[in-house]
Amino acid sequence: MLVVMHQKATREEIDNVVQAIEQRGYVARPIPGGQRVSIGVLHNKGPVDGSLFLGLPGVKDVIPVTRPYKLVGREFKPQDSVIRVGDVPVGKGFFTIIAGPCALESEEQAITIARHVKEFGAHMFRGGAFKPRTSPYSFQGLGERGLKILDKVREVTGLPVVTEVMDYENFDLVESFADVIQIGARNMQNFSLLRRAGKAKKPILLKRGIAATVEEWLMAAEYIMEGGNEQVILCERGVRTFVHHSRNTLDLSAVPYVRSESHLPVIVDPSHAAGRRDQVIPLSQAAVGVGADGIMVEVHHTPDKALSDGAQSLYPEQFRELCRNVRSIYRLLQLNHSEGK
Amino acid sequence: MLVVMHQKATREEIDNVVQAIEQRGYVARPIPGGQRVSIGVLHNKGPVDGSLFLGLPGVKDVIPVTRPYKLVGREFKPQDSVIRVGDVPVGKGFFTIIAGPCALESEEQAITIARHVKEFGAHMFRGGAFKPRTSPYSFQGLGERGLKILDKVREVTGLPVVTEVMDYENFDLVESFADVIQIGARNMQNFSLLRRAGKAKKPILLKRGIAATVEEWLMAAEYIMEGGNEQVILCERGVRTFVHHSRNTLDLSAVPYVRSESHLPVIVDPSHAAGRRDQVIPLSQAAVGVGADGIMVEVHHTPDKALSDGAQSLYPEQFRELCRNVRSIYRLLQLNHSEGK
Amino acid sequence: MLVVMHQKATREEIDNVVQAIEQRGYVARPIPGGQRVSIGVLHNKGPVDGSLFLGLPGVKDVIPVTRPYKLVGREFKPQDSVIRVGDVPVGKGFFTIIAGPCALESEEQAITIARHVKEFGAHMFRGGAFKPRTSPYSFQGLGERGLKILDKVREVTGLPVVTEVMDYENFDLVESFADVIQIGARNMQNFSLLRRAGKAKKPILLKRGIAATVEEWLMAAEYIMEGGNEQVILCERGVRTFVHHSRNTLDLSAVPYVRSESHLPVIVDPSHAAGRRDQVIPLSQAAVGVGADGIMVEVHHTPDKALSDGAQSLYPEQFRELCRNVRSIYRLLQLNHSEGK
Amino acid sequence: MLVVMHQKATREEIDNVVQAIEQRGYVARPIPGGQRVSIGVLHNKGPVDGSLFLGLPGVKDVIPVTRPYKLVGREFKPQDSVIRVGDVPVGKGFFTIIAGPCALESEEQAITIARHVKEFGAHMFRGGAFKPRTSPYSFQGLGERGLKILDKVREVTGLPVVTEVMDYENFDLVESFADVIQIGARNMQNFSLLRRAGKAKKPILLKRGIAATVEEWLMAAEYIMEGGNEQVILCERGVRTFVHHSRNTLDLSAVPYVRSESHLPVIVDPSHAAGRRDQVIPLSQAAVGVGADGIMVEVHHTPDKALSDGAQSLYPEQFRELCRNVRSIYRLLQLNHSEGK
Repeated sequence: MLVVMHQKATREEIDNVVQAIEQRGYVARPIPGGQRVSIGVLHNKGPVDGSLFLGLPGVKDVIPVTRPYKLVGREFKPQDSVIRVGDVPVGKGFFTIIAGPCALESEEQAITIARHVKEFGAHMFRGGAFKPRTSPYSFQGLGERGLKILDKVREVTGLPVVTEVMDYENFDLVESFADVIQIGARNMQNFSLLRRAGKAKKPILLKRGIAATVEEWLMAAEYIMEGGNEQVILCERGVRTFVHHSRNTLDLSAVPYVRSESHLPVIVDPSHAAGRRDQVIPLSQAAVGVGADGIMVEVHHTPDKALSDGAQSLYPEQFRELCRNVRSIYRLLQLNHSEGK
Repeated sequence: MLVVMHQKATREEIDNVVQAIEQRGYVARPIPGGQRVSIGVLHNKGPVDGSLFLGLPGVKDVIPVTRPYKLVGREFKPQDSVIRVGDVPVGKGFFTIIAGPCALESEEQAITIARHVKEFGAHMFRGGAFKPRTSPYSFQGLGERGLKILDKVREVTGLPVVTEVMDYENFDLVESFADVIQIGARNMQNFSLLRRAGKAKKPILLKRGIAATVEEWLMAAEYIMEGGNEQVILCERGVRTFVHHSRNTLDLSAVPYVRSESHLPVIVDPSHAAGRRDQVIPLSQAAVGVGADGIMVEVHHTPDKALSDGAQSLYPEQFRELCRNVRSIYRLLQLNHSEGK
Repeated sequence: MLVVMHQKATREEIDNVVQAIEQRGYVARPIPGGQRVSIGVLHNKGPVDGSLFLGLPGVKDVIPVTRPYKLVGREFKPQDSVIRVGDVPVGKGFFTIIAGPCALESEEQAITIARHVKEFGAHMFRGGAFKPRTSPYSFQGLGERGLKILDKVREVTGLPVVTEVMDYENFDLVESFADVIQIGARNMQNFSLLRRAGKAKKPILLKRGIAATVEEWLMAAEYIMEGGNEQVILCERGVRTFVHHSRNTLDLSAVPYVRSESHLPVIVDPSHAAGRRDQVIPLSQAAVGVGADGIMVEVHHTPDKALSDGAQSLYPEQFRELCRNVRSIYRLLQLNHSEGK
Repeated sequence: MLVVMHQKATREEIDNVVQAIEQRGYVARPIPGGQRVSIGVLHNKGPVDGSLFLGLPGVKDVIPVTRPYKLVGREFKPQDSVIRVGDVPVGKGFFTIIAGPCALESEEQAITIARHVKEFGAHMFRGGAFKPRTSPYSFQGLGERGLKILDKVREVTGLPVVTEVMDYENFDLVESFADVIQIGARNMQNFSLLRRAGKAKKPILLKRGIAATVEEWLMAAEYIMEGGNEQVILCERGVRTFVHHSRNTLDLSAVPYVRSESHLPVIVDPSHAAGRRDQVIPLSQAAVGVGADGIMVEVHHTPDKALSDGAQSLYPEQFRELCRNVRSIYRLLQLNHSEGK
């Protein structure tokens, strides 16, 4: 970390900062510059909280240099992590497709959709039993009844299932039914939930919060890994911006950035980012182009009648087209890459 | 709600949308326009989920007309709500000042600060026992030990205390110690927590999420009120933008907007918005100017040694200046207002 | 347009709004709803300025229904426009690659790079002679000397050239040298410049402003088309968000949205969006995946010595890889699409 | 500036960066840290372009330390600048109120409004003759005829007049009529216009762009000052965010931040930020509370009939209330401040 002093900071103020740094157990190294003095903070094992020094007299700015995360970082583990969900790998060398309805509505609905998506190429089934809803008056999901439908889906189709956990109270229950436990965008910094996820035996699919920096997202993953669960799949699902033409703005540059910072796999959810069906195929193709490890998309056989997010759900025929395109792009890029060597 | 059809929507597509609306139990009223047809959705008791119709063939857009909230809305209850915390009112006619350290560190620290802020004019004391932290390696608060310190603060100074609850698991515990229970920005859409807060007997101070629209914020309050707890205090604390010169951007226009939409009191937290001490007094003065019902600010007697957010904590002397200024502005505006009548 | 009245608007207020609408020459059609009255504004030939009615007593909201643009809109011209730059088409059925340095530095630099990019597959050369720079102390471009270098590049390589015009004063000069005239993000709403571009005989490449909605961007194109120049190429280059890991956030969902709204071709500039080299290839692949009509990328043979934006310029070898990948993805998607029919 | 190397950067890569820094004429000072090496760039007279080094092998990040501006900076000129417009001061010790219609419509309209605002306390009159409009089909202002109306307003009321210049072509004309020349938000980085403003003999009111950082805004002012015109008044008018309840989000923390960085006066435009009348008085009161040197507000005697931005224009009676409140708050804060000493 670098503490930047004001141009007119006095000798006394500089000494005071040096002292404050050393009182915290770090080494302070003043660096005289052309216009001002900066002070390096060295030999810190973990990250230093910059705000400790920002308020001291004469301090202009505090600049972090070291990354605040460890376990999720590539400096800690250089090789890519591949998470296994039953037979399905998620990570380098594979392009994993997860599909299904936003909310589970009935056994018939779930199995109909699951058969469609399996036929067209999905590797896992998604479906929400507990739904986070902005309004207390909206459909909140089938709860435990929905989880039992997931069991049935797995039994009938063989697909592993992904479903969301919304709170600590229902974690045991969800964990007992899910193959992958999803933590949604609104809960990305629900730290009690993250700590509980750190004790889980199942992989966690961690969505990025709608206004989270990549650093905050990785720190949320750090909470889970720090608890002992190393099976974390990151999922980019769009950030909130001033833009109106899509529900959120899919931040695809996060994918190569996460790739450079972390060994964890990262997939993309174009359905929630777009909020409208006609952008889902283009954005899925973009996601494979940008180098994501997979996608998670919403599919419904009768989206006009869906109880949740029908407007963004693909028809099964559209999902077939999507799968064909993303798989062929993925293979093409792998081929180009190996030829390029 | 208004369903807007494409310019070239066919008769059949329009009929299909009308049918879909009526199947949901609403009345559809087509409105032929100069360039296109729109279809009004009428007689809905509660809000309609627009996404139900957005994906139908021929539909260009779906525009909500009615507000999605009820209990928090001024149309439901026109007169301003005033929440009472012991002797301290929060709401129209009062300007409530809440102050204290970010995190509780020790009984001595808490009581020292509480005495300062009481002397200079605070009406309530704030201090965190459970701290939401981006990093699992940061100081997480004293927990129950911190809550006991709050009891002591109340006993010694008589000030009611505000403290944050982070999860369902500790809600009972926090509720038994707090006079006002704070739900933080990261938990604004932690719906399990909101539902639990709806059963609480204590007032809830609900912070706005860093990327929440006012509508989402009011819907979060609606969760609490729908559960039976009508004592909700809203707290604006800045939103995340591209701006670097403050930690977040304090959105003061939210105050008059909330005032026009809701009967609930709304206060402002300039400390977390700014993230730096030198903006706290100016932003507090702005908050009273914009018509807030109060402020919540961080004060520390030795901010350089604070375990959390020291850079944004005021020195007691600064807090004295702040109180003097905001109180006199508040009285002045009340006087001007009554003279203006 | 729809004028939404307050729930408690009086009969008189409603009549007053009806009158105000009709005084402007429109037809007012009141629509009684379950909770409130709305008033449709009909038979308007062009767009109506909603703010005219927003301030009237009893009005809660004003909701636009019709799009504000005409000439750029697909309702005006359903078939896709293809712009021809010499032999090079830009638009449906082609994937156009534009490449070159950020700033022109010397004839030798330009020709070296132009030969590289031509060899690897670029269809046009880009290079700035007039550079918009945040700081008055930064390198501002070679000016007219740069334009003459472009003549040389065209002569030697046969590639058409794209270069930016910054102001009305130099428009004639730039127009006489350029094959495509670029209007940069900062000038997207420089209306004098847009009007002048409307009189130009050369195609205009119009970059989206960093905080422009798609609607504002299309309205900027409308200025150009309204002036008589129908040759407009839109270029998405990222929007400003809270995100730090890239300079701007590339908004790829804008591509399918523009496609649905407008007949104009739309390309993507990943270099300026990313601001860092290691994201340019992934984002280029994403751009072809999302359905863009082309890309514009920065390439430099010695980026470490570039006078401007070196950090985001590709090495020629990287550009070769990029071209191979985007061209093969483009062909694959065309093939899939034609097989899918 | 600090160049931060990757944890595993080789000796060779570090040497290469050192060499690159020294080739540019700077002094490189490597700083070995606990986990990685950083390299300070020293003795630079002006700002260094960090992107020059960001792309070098082994470089992880480049961190600016010195501010990029000089003439506008407080390090250059510590004492506050006060700009004089005729008898009216703008800057420390005064609270300047500028008011008038968005667009000039007729002599009668302008003089009617000017008389109102003068009576209630405005120090200057504002009114647009050239209007930047998103749509080419909207009213574009009266042009030169509008400027002549300003002459009349000054003659009749004695108020100095503020009006916007949109382009280089009309700059001479506008300069000959205006007392203060406004450069609007969309033109904040129209560098040709800024250079021309640097040659003007009249004060420039420079609005902040809707997505401009304070640094970019100050750099735009630097363009003007560098050209020789030291009379620059900064005007905060809101930034674009995800928020819907106001047109833009007024960023009031920019005021104390600009104050700490620059000696230039800074005023606030609540009308364009809000876009709706009912937020203008609260935000004006917030502006004086936060420490602005003045406000610029829109007033119209018949806003329902205004040709532009009627919804945000105050009625004269509201402006009277606003003036009373902001003036009394300003005096109160001055009084408290002098007593506090």
